[in-house]
Order: sequence, then C-alpha cells, then structure tokens
Amino acid sequence: MTTIRSETRPGAYYDSAVLMQLQRSLLGLPGVADAGVVMATPANCELLEQSGLLTPGAQKAGPNDLLLVVRAASEAEAEAALAQVDALLTRRRTAVEQEFRPRSLETALRQLPEAAWVLVSVPGRYAAGVAREALDLDRHVFLYSDNVPLADEVALKQTALARGLLVMGPDCGTAIINGFGLGFANRVRRGPVGLVGASGTGLQAITSRLHALGSGVSHALGTGGRDLKAEVDAGTARQALDLLARDPETRVIVIVSKPPAPAVATRLLAAAQATGKPVVVDFLGYPPPGRQIGNLHFAATLAEAAELAAALAAAPPAPPAPAAPPLAAPYLRALFSGGTLAYEALLGLQAMLAPLYSNVALTEAQHLADPLHSQAHTILDLGEDVFTVGRLHPMIDNDLRLRRLRQEAADPEVGLILLDVVLGEGAHPDPAAELAPAIAAAKAARSELEVVALVVGTDADPQGLEAQLQRFAEVGAVVVQTTSAAVNYIAQRLARAPAAVPMPVVLERLNQTPLAAINVGLESFAASLVGQGAAVVQVDWRPPAGGNERLMAILAKMKKT
Amino acid sequence: MTTIRSETRPGAYYDSAVLMQLQRSLLGLPGVADAGVVMATPANCELLEQSGLLTPGAQKAGPNDLLLVVRAASEAEAEAALAQVDALLTRRRTAVEQEFRPRSLETALRQLPEAAWVLVSVPGRYAAGVAREALDLDRHVFLYSDNVPLADEVALKQTALARGLLVMGPDCGTAIINGFGLGFANRVRRGPVGLVGASGTGLQAITSRLHALGSGVSHALGTGGRDLKAEVDAGTARQALDLLARDPETRVIVIVSKPPAPAVATRLLAAAQATGKPVVVDFLGYPPPGRQIGNLHFAATLAEAAELAAALAAAPPAPPAPAAPPLAAPYLRALFSGGTLAYEALLGLQAMLAPLYSNVALTEAQHLADPLHSQAHTILDLGEDVFTVGRLHPMIDNDLRLRRLRQEAADPEVGLILLDVVLGEGAHPDPAAELAPAIAAAKAARSELEVVALVVGTDADPQGLEAQLQRFAEVGAVVVQTTSAAVNYIAQRLARAPAAVPMPVVLERLNQTPLAAINVGLESFAASLVGQGAAVVQVDWRPPAGGNERLMAILAKMKKT
Repeated sequence: MTTIRSETRPGAYYDSAVLMQLQRSLLGLPGVADAGVVMATPANCELLEQSGLLTPGAQKAGPNDLLLVVRAASEAEAEAALAQVDALLTRRRTAVEQEFRPRSLETALRQLPEAAWVLVSVPGRYAAGVAREALDLDRHVFLYSDNVPLADEVALKQTALARGLLVMGPDCGTAIINGFGLGFANRVRRGPVGLVGASGTGLQAITSRLHALGSGVSHALGTGGRDLKAEVDAGTARQALDLLARDPETRVIVIVSKPPAPAVATRLLAAAQATGKPVVVDFLGYPPPGRQIGNLHFAATLAEAAELAAALAAAPPAPPAPAAPPLAAPYLRALFSGGTLAYEALLGLQAMLAPLYSNVALTEAQHLADPLHSQAHTILDLGEDVFTVGRLHPMIDNDLRLRRLRQEAADPEVGLILLDVVLGEGAHPDPAAELAPAIAAAKAARSELEVVALVVGTDADPQGLEAQLQRFAEVGAVVVQTTSAAVNYIAQRLARAPAAVPMPVVLERLNQTPLAAINVGLESFAASLVGQGAAVVQVDWRPPAGGNERLMAILAKMKKT
Repeated sequence: MTTIRSETRPGAYYDSAVLMQLQRSLLGLPGVADAGVVMATPANCELLEQSGLLTPGAQKAGPNDLLLVVRAASEAEAEAALAQVDALLTRRRTAVEQEFRPRSLETALRQLPEAAWVLVSVPGRYAAGVAREALDLDRHVFLYSDNVPLADEVALKQTALARGLLVMGPDCGTAIINGFGLGFANRVRRGPVGLVGASGTGLQAITSRLHALGSGVSHALGTGGRDLKAEVDAGTARQALDLLARDPETRVIVIVSKPPAPAVATRLLAAAQATGKPVVVDFLGYPPPGRQIGNLHFAATLAEAAELAAALAAAPPAPPAPAAPPLAAPYLRALFSGGTLAYEALLGLQAMLAPLYSNVALTEAQHLADPLHSQAHTILDLGEDVFTVGRLHPMIDNDLRLRRLRQEAADPEVGLILLDVVLGEGAHPDPAAELAPAIAAAKAARSELEVVALVVGTDADPQGLEAQLQRFAEVGAVVVQTTSAAVNYIAQRLARAPAAVPMPVVLERLNQTPLAAINVGLESFAASLVGQGAAVVQVDWRPPAGGNERLMAILAKMKKT
C-alpha cells in the first residue's frame, strides 16, 4: 500500500529545469515511490492521472498553478517529503558560476556590452516580450521558447528585418554560429557547408551526418518551425540565405524544412537560385520538382541532404553558366500532347514559376478558368478528355496544337513556348513536318520568342529520332529529351531574382570570436556556451509581477500610458 | 474576303481518324482557307469560334451531331467543298489491308481464334460495352478509349480479376507486350525491365530512356490513369505486379503513376515489396518516403526512374536478406524527442504501414484522438507544444518518455518500439544511463519485443557517441544513426504481405509469339501491329443503332428482358 499527498502553489513560477531537479530530489527521499512536479495544465494533469498521481486536491488546480505530488510508502513519509520542498528549492545547484546575476537585459548588457546575441528560453507567454527588448537593444535573438503566438513572431521578424537583426525562432532548438552551438547543437568540425533550418533536429541530423562524412559546418541558422508559413513569409530564412550567400567560408548551402507554404517555397527557391552557390533543398514531404534544377539539388531525406552537401562541397566548383540574353517577355506557355509529361512539368515548374495555371492543376490556385485562354505561366495538357471528344489524340492529330501555337506566339506576354513531341508506334508519322514549320513561322514573326521542343522517342522508332531532333534544331528550337531537362532549362530562363533583403545582417558580427551572449532562461544553455569558450552572462529572470497575469496586464497598461 | 458555310449531320458517327482525314481533304480543295470537322461538343464549338469558324447554323448543333465547316475565298468554292464530303468519305484510304471485315467481335474471333487481345478505341460511351464483350469471350483488353464512366471501369476490372484476365485502361495509351507495342508505344529493345504504368507518356518516357541507356523492356503494362484511385483499388496494377513478379525475364520492375490514393499506395507498395525483385517507384508528386526501403527504390522523375532501373538491371542481383524471426505483435510505437525526426519517420512509414496514427499527423486520417493513448501503429512527437508547458524538452528530461515506454511495452499488441536519442550541447548529459535500463526492463518482461534506438550525434559530442551506441546495443536494441535507416528497418520488419491476386493471369498467354489481336476502333493501331509482325483482325465497328442514343436505350432494354 502506498499513499499520495499533494500540494498546490497558486501562480508560482519556477523554470522547468528547477522543477525537474525538484522532482528528482523528491524521488530520492526515504519511502518515496513516485513524484510529480508540474504546472497543472490539462495535459499534465492527465499525465499525472496515468501515473496514478492525480489527487482530488490537485484536480482543482489551474494551468498557472504549480502542483507537487508525492506517492510514498506511508503518510508520514509523504508529508515529510513535501515538507522539504522549500529546502530543496533553495539548495538547488546552479549551472553557471557567476558572481553577480543581473535581473534585466539592460544590466546584463552593461556587464557584457560585446554580446551580439540574446538567448531566450523563458516560458512562451513571456518570450516575445524578452525578444522585443533584445531587438530594441540592437541584439540578435536566439528564441528557443515555444508556445509563442504567431502574431508576435510576425511582429518580431518584421522589426528584425527592418534593423538588420536576426530572430532565430520561436521554437528554434538549435544553431551553430561560427563554431559555437546554441541550444541543442552537436559538436561538429568547421567547414564549407552553411545551413538554414526551420527544423531543429533536422539541422542536428544533417550537421551530425556531415561531420561523420568528414565535412563540416560554417554556420547553421535556425529559423523556427513556422518561418516558412505564409504569415511569416520566411523572414528569417531569407536573411539566413542572404548571409550564407555573402559568407566567403560557405561553399555549399543546405535548406531544410517541413513543407513550406507553396508561395513561400517558390520565393525561397528563387532566393536560393540567386545565391549562385550549390544549394541542397530538403523540404520534407514536399514532392521534389526533380533531382536538380540549376544550382538547386533536391534531397529526399535528411541523410541524403548531408551526403549531397558533402559531395558538392568536396567537388571543384562548377563554372558559372554563360549568361543567356534575357527573354523578351516573361511568360511560359506549354502545349503538351502527353498527359504525364504535362504533369511532370507542372510538378517541376510549380516550385519555380508563379503565378502558374493549368487545365490539369495540382492545387486550387493553379486552376485555369478557361482552357482555351492561357493566363500568366500556363501548362496545358491538350490530350485531356475535354479536348478529345470526337477528335484524335494530339499525338496523332496536330491541328489543335498548331492553332494554339499560333495563338500563344501572338501574345506579347509570352517569352517561351514548350511543345512535347512523342514518337513511336501509333503516333503521327512525321510530327516535325507539321510542327517545325509552325515554330519557324512563330519565330519569324517574333525573333526573340524561344521555343523548347521536348522529343520523346528512340532510334528504332518509325519516325526516326535523329531526323526529328534535327528538324526542330534547324528551326531554332531548343531541343531536349526529358521533362527534367526541359524543367531545368525553363526554370533557369524564366526565374526572376527575388527582392533583396531590406537590410543585410552584418556578417562580421556573426563571425565574432569568441561568441558573446546574454542568456535569459534555461541555465544549461549558458553552461554549455561557457564550456565552449563563449562569453556569457546569465540573467536571473523572473516573470513580470511574479507571473500574476492580472497584475501583468495592469502593469503593461500603465507602461503604455 | 472569305465566306463560311457549314453543314450539320445530326447523330452521325464516324471515327476520329476519318474526321481528321476529311478535314485535311477539305483543306486541300480549291479556294478553301480553313476547315473544321468535329462533333459539336461545347468545347469543340468554342474552338471553332476561336478559329473564326462558328456559324449561326453550327451553333444549334448538339454534342452528338457532326459539324462540317468550310471557310473559302468565295461562296461557290465553299459550297463546292461541302458538296464533295460524301465522295471524300467513300474515297478514304484504309490503313489495314483485309479482305473480309467482320462486323462483330465474335466473328472476328472465329477468324483469328488465337487472338489473346482485344484492342478497344471506340468513343468512350460505347467502349465499356465492347470491353465487356471481350471479357465474356475470355480475352485480355487493351482499352484506349477515354471518357469511360468510373463505375464501368470498376465493374470491368472486378470481372477481369475474377477471371484471370487483364483490362489495361480505360484511357490506357500504351503497352508493350512481349515486344509488341500496343497503342502509342516506342520501339525499344527487349530486356530485363518490366513496367507497370498508370500513365501513358510516363511509360513511353521511361521505356525510351531505358533504350537510350542500352537497357530494354520485358513487358510494359498500362493500367489507365484512374487505376490507383480508391474506387478502382489498383485492380490492374496488382495483377501487373503479380505477372512481372512471376515472369523470369523480368529482373527489375518499375511502377509509374500520378499520386495514388494513400491507402492504395500503401497496399501497392506492400505488393511491390512482396515481389522480392528490385522495384523502382515513381509516384509523380507523391513525397518519396526515402531513397530506398528494402527492395523499393524511389525516383523523383521519369528520367531518374529509367536510370535507376537500368543501373539495377545491370548490377548483380542482391543476395536475399536473411529472414528474421517474425515479430510477436503487429504494431509500432515510436516515441520521439526530435520533432523533425518524428516527421521524417512518419513520412517514410506512412507509405508502408497502415493504419498509422500520430500527434503530428500529415493527413486527417492519421490524427491520433488522444496523444496519451496510442492506437495501431503510432508515431509520437513528445516535444510537441502540448507536452512542454512547464516541462523541459524530452531531449533534456527523459521522465515522460520513460513512463510512456513502460506503457507501450505493456501493450500486447506492440511488437516494436522506436526511440530517438539526440546527443550534443544542451541535451541530457547521458541519455543511455536512463533509457538503456528501461529498454532492458521492457525486454526482460517481454523478450520478443524489439526496440530500435535512433542515435543522432557525433564523436565530438560531450556524451560520447561510441559509448552511447554501445550501451543501447548491450541491452539488445537495434541501433541506427539515421531516420532513413530506421524507416528501412521497420518497414521490412512490419510489412505484411498483401492478399494474393485472386486468379493469376496465365503468363504463357502473355508471351504469345507472334502476338494476335482483334482491333475495334482506330485502324492505325491495327496497321501498327501488322507492321510489327502481329496477327490482327480489324473489326468494321459501328455504334449500336447507328449512334442514336434513344434507340440504343430501347435495344438495351429489349436485350435485358
């Protein structure tokens, strides 16, 4: 038989590390079989219940109350354990040796004025306030805290962007700055790979693997898991890319994230393309547009991202591609006869071109209102059912495509037209005989118009592959033989450089040695930085008004007036 | 100045090839500037309008009416052109030399009883009827026609599955059977790669590329674009996989499709896994679960699918993996501290395990109702916000995971538990010291329970990578260092062989030489087969009741009674 005793401390604040230490200490006391020390949120109460630790008294506690529960062999032992709580709390070890503990960021910065960084790991509801204070004091922020409202994240990042400061987070678990690990970070050798990650353990897995492969890391910049959402618009990721593009130590860049919002993905990939450096992209769960598009390399897994980056960093740098003359007009029109080829092209180009429409749309936003009239970038499958009622497939009958080709070529907004040509049994006996003259006529009318012919076939096909390829080349078409090659070519011809980051982060400040930082929150992060040779001041942070929400609201109101 | 004349032939049926020939012939007549010969569907009328060919008379025509439109230099020339339509129709060239043209499938089969195949390319609304007749006559069907109702497809495939017959299609554009191309097909050398494709030009692109790479094709089996929808449940694809698994000529299999319904994907991948042969999977637009899971290799593009297949076919066959003793219970429980690691594992395993639940679900169906209680296969991210209010992250504090580990290990339905262990700065100073004894205790209670430890870290990390790995190995955990390796291991341990195809297709019949077939519809398909040395009989097909829908309905009713 055991007995359970609990105690509630309304509105009491202790940081999570203190609570963990207290729970462990209680477990070490005589007769104690189990113990729980948690804030009384519904989830935590349910967890206590699962462990048989929920008492009737504890059930009345609220999410801002601290719950102390002990199960012991006897009532006396349980009571004795709870009676020691205050003594245990004062006896707790501190992780950082520090004579004077400033209570505010401002005081801490007077102690360590060279600190470029403020690490924030206080509970979510206080975190945005601390981060804002750090930005106002002109410091970069590593924001570990989670449970921070999205609106606060948006506001913080807008401020940071306008001032050339970084806000990594909220919910940023990891970063490696100039060889110093912040938060959770693996020790890896310095090297040529720079990383941007909206994904903490994603960055840790890739940096660890890079180290195992003999490569190393210049900087690994976390952004927080929500940075690539539409609302946040990759505020931090764009700054991070810009930093790594300008950093001479970084030869290869890796971006890792859960699937970004589609529009954000397109803009971010354009920014990655504009860096000119090889960029390995691992958007977990995002269907890759191919294996490679220009300088972008798409990985399917974290492990593969590391392998690709290590290989690219070890290879001699690719010579820059010769600059082609710019296209006269911005838009693509793709007129496909092959449904899967259209689908694959759409899949590849949706990551790179916007806005993009199709009669075989993959998303609602891509839906082409009228298949007979193109809009912006358009990819058409002319073999779609609506076009083939009582009409031969466009792989046999070119009539529909010839008419559409004339229509698109006459549109002054069109800079590039893509046609597929599928050879083989059953197909038109000589497609080039009809399509090549039409291409020639279109280019005669507008010499700056580019046409790409994607020819699928073999040297055994009845049409003769070589002869067909030659006919298209003769009329000035760019001839390719896989959709991937077409996507690769088109993405590079039509990509538009994104708007520059409004105020670049000063690179020298990132490369500060040793790193100097102020830590607000989990002491273990300060201890870890000290162990790495960084200069750190730990703030003895307490929630405003002792964590009392009503009093906080009154204080905030008074401050404003 | 030009003038336009049109003629409507209500309810007239001609096949599309005849209409194309007629339009071309009209264009060749004196004074004719443009011509249109189409069924008067709304889309076709709009296309005529775009070409300036829509007359007031034509606007009154319906979708079953044939429209003939001519634009000519003079009224007289336009009239003269239309006057020649009947003569042009009787003068049309026939693609196949054939003395006697049977009017029915039955008669055709008396002429060529060895025909194993019936090719159907009549208009969509008649196609299911012809296909059903072919199945009733015990023949495989290559169903090129599109615009066939989904319900008809489901019914046809159920019949076919029950009789050991194949229905490739509807909307199946291509197939290569024993070296003979059906429909649209590229001429490629015979070889070791067998393909299954719910994607016509996808198969064409891959087979062409295989040929260019020096490899070749055993069979390429089309399924139609809707085969991997939930309603059709991959009826043809499963038969095709089964065929290629049994075919001794096929050393490597390729599956290509647009993204399948999730449940269909899982079942189909299980079937692919069960073939034991290397299988290259290209589900266009489906986020790949990794680069390789056991014998499954995932490609990002059509071109890459061909490259992978050619490389696998050229490599010496991998020795079969030693069979591990079966797990005592069917389900996985994964307890992650790293959010991205959980996400990557979910992404990989959702393709292989069902049903699968998570507190970081990727789809509605995966949503775990109560994060505190697992169901079937469950993947948990214990670093999720709900678990971290007032509690340290599970990478620092193992308490929550230790309790959950005991809970899962006690569940008799659980066969395998996965834990991640993230080392590095900021993390727990010695996770193995707490987790390894808990694993040992779980395995002591249930010796058949498997535990996989995914350890992320470097040899420079403060915890010491080697020591941690060793501690987990010592307590009998399977130790891996990437999520990909964990996914690969688990997918192979927990995969369940799918139900067998009810009645296998007889392989010998597929390998018939020369191929013998009946063609109903586009004559060019018959001509192409004859050119390839196949034995073919062309049916002189007419729509029932001359295409008159009302009469057809009456006839169908009479047949039933």
